[in-house]
Amino acid sequence: MKTINIQFDDRSYPIYIGQNLISDFSLINQHLPHKKIAVVTNNLVADIYLDTLINSLSPHKDVISIILTDGEKHKNTDSLNIIYSELLKNKADRNITLIALGGGVIGDITGFAAATYMRGVNFIQIPTTLLSQVDSSVGGKTGINHPLGKNMIGAFYQPKCVITDVNVLTTLPRRELSAGLAEVIKYGLIRDIRFFEWLEDNMQSLVGMKQDYLMEAILRSCQNKADVVEADEFESGIRAILNLGHTFGHAIEVAQGYGNWLHGEAVGAGIVMAAKLSQSMNWLSDKDLKRITKLIKNAGLPTIPPNISVEKYLELMMLDKKTKDGQINLVLQKSMGEAVLTNAYDSSKLRQILDQSSH
Amino acid sequence: MKTINIQFDDRSYPIYIGQNLISDFSLINQHLPHKKIAVVTNNLVADIYLDTLINSLSPHKDVISIILTDGEKHKNTDSLNIIYSELLKNKADRNITLIALGGGVIGDITGFAAATYMRGVNFIQIPTTLLSQVDSSVGGKTGINHPLGKNMIGAFYQPKCVITDVNVLTTLPRRELSAGLAEVIKYGLIRDIRFFEWLEDNMQSLVGMKQDYLMEAILRSCQNKADVVEADEFESGIRAILNLGHTFGHAIEVAQGYGNWLHGEAVGAGIVMAAKLSQSMNWLSDKDLKRITKLIKNAGLPTIPPNISVEKYLELMMLDKKTKDGQINLVLQKSMGEAVLTNAYDSSKLRQILDQSSH
Repeated sequence: MKTINIQFDDRSYPIYIGQNLISDFSLINQHLPHKKIAVVTNNLVADIYLDTLINSLSPHKDVISIILTDGEKHKNTDSLNIIYSELLKNKADRNITLIALGGGVIGDITGFAAATYMRGVNFIQIPTTLLSQVDSSVGGKTGINHPLGKNMIGAFYQPKCVITDVNVLTTLPRRELSAGLAEVIKYGLIRDIRFFEWLEDNMQSLVGMKQDYLMEAILRSCQNKADVVEADEFESGIRAILNLGHTFGHAIEVAQGYGNWLHGEAVGAGIVMAAKLSQSMNWLSDKDLKRITKLIKNAGLPTIPPNISVEKYLELMMLDKKTKDGQINLVLQKSMGEAVLTNAYDSSKLRQILDQSSH
Repeated sequence: MKTINIQFDDRSYPIYIGQNLISDFSLINQHLPHKKIAVVTNNLVADIYLDTLINSLSPHKDVISIILTDGEKHKNTDSLNIIYSELLKNKADRNITLIALGGGVIGDITGFAAATYMRGVNFIQIPTTLLSQVDSSVGGKTGINHPLGKNMIGAFYQPKCVITDVNVLTTLPRRELSAGLAEVIKYGLIRDIRFFEWLEDNMQSLVGMKQDYLMEAILRSCQNKADVVEADEFESGIRAILNLGHTFGHAIEVAQGYGNWLHGEAVGAGIVMAAKLSQSMNWLSDKDLKRITKLIKNAGLPTIPPNISVEKYLELMMLDKKTKDGQINLVLQKSMGEAVLTNAYDSSKLRQILDQSSH
């Protein structure tokens, strides 16, 4: 098992990465100061891993389970209210610990419920998808979607610990694995060119679900993310670079309806769109653009966005949280392994990249 | 105008207390870093004060108004969603400032919306009731009610400033003024016996809405609250004493249906119930209990709680956020001007106080 410590000014917490950690009671128990636990999960994850977790906890703790319906389209106030109501019905007080057992959707909703139930209770993440292991479980962003925009409602709220069990990836659908790899590739592109090269060399092993390679990819991804969020917990500056491909990606997700394109798939296509805009500014070469497109493709991700009108794209991109005073700010690549938040791009070139009919 | 500064570790903010502050653009503008403003208010307050505020802001700022329906029963997710939707429809980004113009309900909902819209935006309070001026606008508690419990969903989130305009009290219904006085009396009882004595001497002037006396009462109340919350921002210890009378009061409010008993009325009756329990422990004398009951009565508040079954009382009190591991913790008076959070009370005496049929 490897441990990465996330350090903030006034508190820090560990991310444990290893095998068979879900059933390791002594590990999780270090972060359970009280008796009452609520495990929040979804119907798919519950079928596979809930019993393992409950069997580990229940000899020692009072555990309730709250099972939500799987899917990004359920990352909304209805699911949030299910959690609140179950907690209140079970007379959960401020000593309750919420454990999120699931992917990014479960982690984000549960984290937001923990941030807002009685103005804040203990929270532990057990991410069960590659995407959530390398991205959403690190950094404290929690929240839900609004019909008018993704992740519009939320809070910054840090867990007591993150337990990343690599074994769970063996039951992950291939499409979900690819979605996670989009974020893994992103870390290489924004700040770690050697990691990008390592991914070029080993993408086949990752797609083939080789455990050692996946563990290495998770470790390097989490370390990269930790370095960025430690420097900027509340996203007032450098943290924005983690959004490479995301302004495009969020627009794709909303336009297609949440869940039709997976988040990582939309980000994969968005990374290629950002690379095209970067190339148009001579920040990337034609060869760089081809390398990026190829790695995204080899990860099993789409490189061509869906056909959405340019006006619709711009309208949805305008809703992005990085938009300031009506100006869409984009994370672009200054070079391979370097990213920047900018509005100094050519708007007509952006429109051309968004316009599928011109391709 | 007087200013009280609230000091926390990493930030501080001013409470301005004076006359005609709502129309003082230069004052509020010190705390408006950006162009876009959303004023959140309710239909009753909007009729009286919204134009004054808008006329002051709109020559300089882009202002939208969001008008909710008045009343504690609307302090819920529906109202919260109205705010989120209006902000998104108006393409509000992270540079938006939310201004709460209203009483405690408006302040709490708007503060929670500010805490959670895009994971946190700027927030300013303009409290328009005595209750919100002396209590809810100070200390950063925000939130909404849940059908199963009051203030169950929320966050700690501090405003950029609080603008307390004493003039607005001239249009406040007498019943609302009395409700505010319950919290004013509380500060005397929990930590400031000289203030309690001042209130005994001057209650008639306060009920008579004499501006100078009201300003003095607000100032001394805010200073008392500031001292407590500065010592304990996240309510892990001493801050609990601010809840004198509130565990009883919340149960009354929920049992009667939100809004039928005003919060301050329920707290007034709750303060007397807490005093009775304190007296039964010989922490207060018979004379102390009489003084407290008399001052609550002179403030125009109920001293006798509604007839609710003991079991219902206990069930609702159990939902209080101070309940830990199934034990109801109560703020009681150790002496006049001193309060303590305790579970070392006589349960049978508590049941007797809750049982109206025994009176």
